[in-house]
Amino acid sequence: MRDRLLAAEKVKAIDWRDGALYLLDQRVLPFEQNWIAYTSAADVAEAIRSRVVRGAPAIGISAAYAVVLAARARAAQGGDWQAALEADFALLADARPTAANLAWVLERMRDRLGRLKEHAEPLTALEAEAIAIHESDREANLTMAQLGVELIRKHQGNAQAILTHGNTGALVTGGFGTALGVIRGAYSEGMVERVYADETRPGLQGSRLTAWELAGEGIPVTLNADAAAAHIMKTKGVTWVIVGADRIAANGDVVNRIGTYQLAVCAMHHGVRFMVVAPSSTVDLDLASGEELSIAERDGRELLKVGGKPLGADMEAFDPVFDVTPADLIDVIVTEKGIIERPDTAKIAQLMCRKRLH
Amino acid sequence: MRDRLLAAEKVKAIDWRDGALYLLDQRVLPFEQNWIAYTSAADVAEAIRSRVVRGAPAIGISAAYAVVLAARARAAQGGDWQAALEADFALLADARPTAANLAWVLERMRDRLGRLKEHAEPLTALEAEAIAIHESDREANLTMAQLGVELIRKHQGNAQAILTHGNTGALVTGGFGTALGVIRGAYSEGMVERVYADETRPGLQGSRLTAWELAGEGIPVTLNADAAAAHIMKTKGVTWVIVGADRIAANGDVVNRIGTYQLAVCAMHHGVRFMVVAPSSTVDLDLASGEELSIAERDGRELLKVGGKPLGADMEAFDPVFDVTPADLIDVIVTEKGIIERPDTAKIAQLMCRKRLH
Repeated sequence: MRDRLLAAEKVKAIDWRDGALYLLDQRVLPFEQNWIAYTSAADVAEAIRSRVVRGAPAIGISAAYAVVLAARARAAQGGDWQAALEADFALLADARPTAANLAWVLERMRDRLGRLKEHAEPLTALEAEAIAIHESDREANLTMAQLGVELIRKHQGNAQAILTHGNTGALVTGGFGTALGVIRGAYSEGMVERVYADETRPGLQGSRLTAWELAGEGIPVTLNADAAAAHIMKTKGVTWVIVGADRIAANGDVVNRIGTYQLAVCAMHHGVRFMVVAPSSTVDLDLASGEELSIAERDGRELLKVGGKPLGADMEAFDPVFDVTPADLIDVIVTEKGIIERPDTAKIAQLMCRKRLH
Repeated sequence: MRDRLLAAEKVKAIDWRDGALYLLDQRVLPFEQNWIAYTSAADVAEAIRSRVVRGAPAIGISAAYAVVLAARARAAQGGDWQAALEADFALLADARPTAANLAWVLERMRDRLGRLKEHAEPLTALEAEAIAIHESDREANLTMAQLGVELIRKHQGNAQAILTHGNTGALVTGGFGTALGVIRGAYSEGMVERVYADETRPGLQGSRLTAWELAGEGIPVTLNADAAAAHIMKTKGVTWVIVGADRIAANGDVVNRIGTYQLAVCAMHHGVRFMVVAPSSTVDLDLASGEELSIAERDGRELLKVGGKPLGADMEAFDPVFDVTPADLIDVIVTEKGIIERPDTAKIAQLMCRKRLH
């Protein structure tokens, strides 16, 4: 499966070559495929801020390469360039202060610089570290794809209808994707008849990104209104709902794109299995349960427009970014460290203690 | 309550005055409030076809007035004008062949003409009949509003959060609306703290019409993405979901705007009560259950666009117009003939045998 996935890979959003970082501009997808070259950390920070690059893993990887660009520029200036580099770390961290993954990547790059052996070439070491971070995310996704596909096969090995929400693909990760990685893997093994993709209002990540990613690889995909998901579960023989996670609490509650919770409720009602795919870095042991989290809200600007025109000034909207799916609605969480069926606090703790499998 | 509703009435979509029919153009709402005057049946037929007027009751009422306009024109031509009128009946019936209500209204107008007493003035009689059809729909809605409000009060008389879907208001009926009529009534009785309105993709009837109707009357309304409904039920203390119906099967299954079924599943999960409000003419005793109905699909054109731009030609969409909510997910159906708690075949049959209350 791994070989087939590597051979079929068509969608990439991050490319590091000839000493420059190339990002596929997600603001204009799927209408234009516009790669932008970056040679400075400040420009990458702006790309993160303006959402040229999206998704926690993809942001982290871009920031790692940005540190390489910054180090190169500072080193060329001479002097105590490693001290000067702190300004770049701060600039990058500030580009998306809420992204835990971004902070973790920057810490890892700073740590690498601190652990340099004598006579080692710092620029080479930093570049190798950034590439390792990128590769490790791709590998984690390939591992999760394999684990997820084994789970699907265990229940039923034939071609099935799968429903997904948001975008969790190659565009927002180092490659292949989390939930979409499992779906890609299942397709390569002949276990996908059709993918139903929620359009995922208000951001329309399903319409703009997921459908484009899957169609581009020839995986049969059908877009649907979010409100049609239960009807599709009832009438189209859906066997699995597969989604990603923005954060996983210590008790297994999953914080993810608004609409995930509704899908989980409907999946349980229909006896459809519910799989969450996310790297173990998503698990936040400091968050006891999802209920403790205050959900960020957008200003509802996207809801308060019809056909691009704003509704009246007297209208208001409630536009939460995420919702919380309680652990007891989740059949299985797939991470690169292994799977957790019927997640709870003890199983999550056990998983997080294990050594990484790769 | 009736008096308060009549006094608060602001939204009308159909007006018959000075021998002409005025329709509020729903294609440009809420951005423009454009009334169009109609003086010929052919123009009204075109208004129905092009969706200037929407919703089964509103279409039926408009067609009744169109028959008056047609009769006036035919009578002025002299000869056997009543025979010539058949061409107008055919034209109007053809404007929306799937609307059962439209066919019923035309039959009633034709029947009125056949039952004329000697020396009666046919144009006066037809106009009185059209006005009676219009008034009777308004009265049915006022009755349903009263019955629905009594139900809400029975469970809890304080101000509550209510969630609704689609548009079921004054715009699509002869006045006040079905589900929105109950919500208007509950507001007039101090029992509405806030209405959450699903934007109702892909047609956005919630954003374009429901939010506009409620905000215009000062009823607190908040728009939300359809995918946020379960999260709202969990976090905002919603006590009732109140929706309309396009058709009700003999066993109590409800056919309504796509997304209704998903709401019913989520309402049951959260212990939120689920109310369907629709005139008894919506009940189709020839349809044994909702499962027998084949659901019309649109071509998905609205789903296959982002920001007005079409997605790639290789994309496909599944865009059912309606879904079926099984009777066992419905707490109560409210009609102008009375209410049915926990609907089933026997209770529906009993209701349909009763004499109309008004």
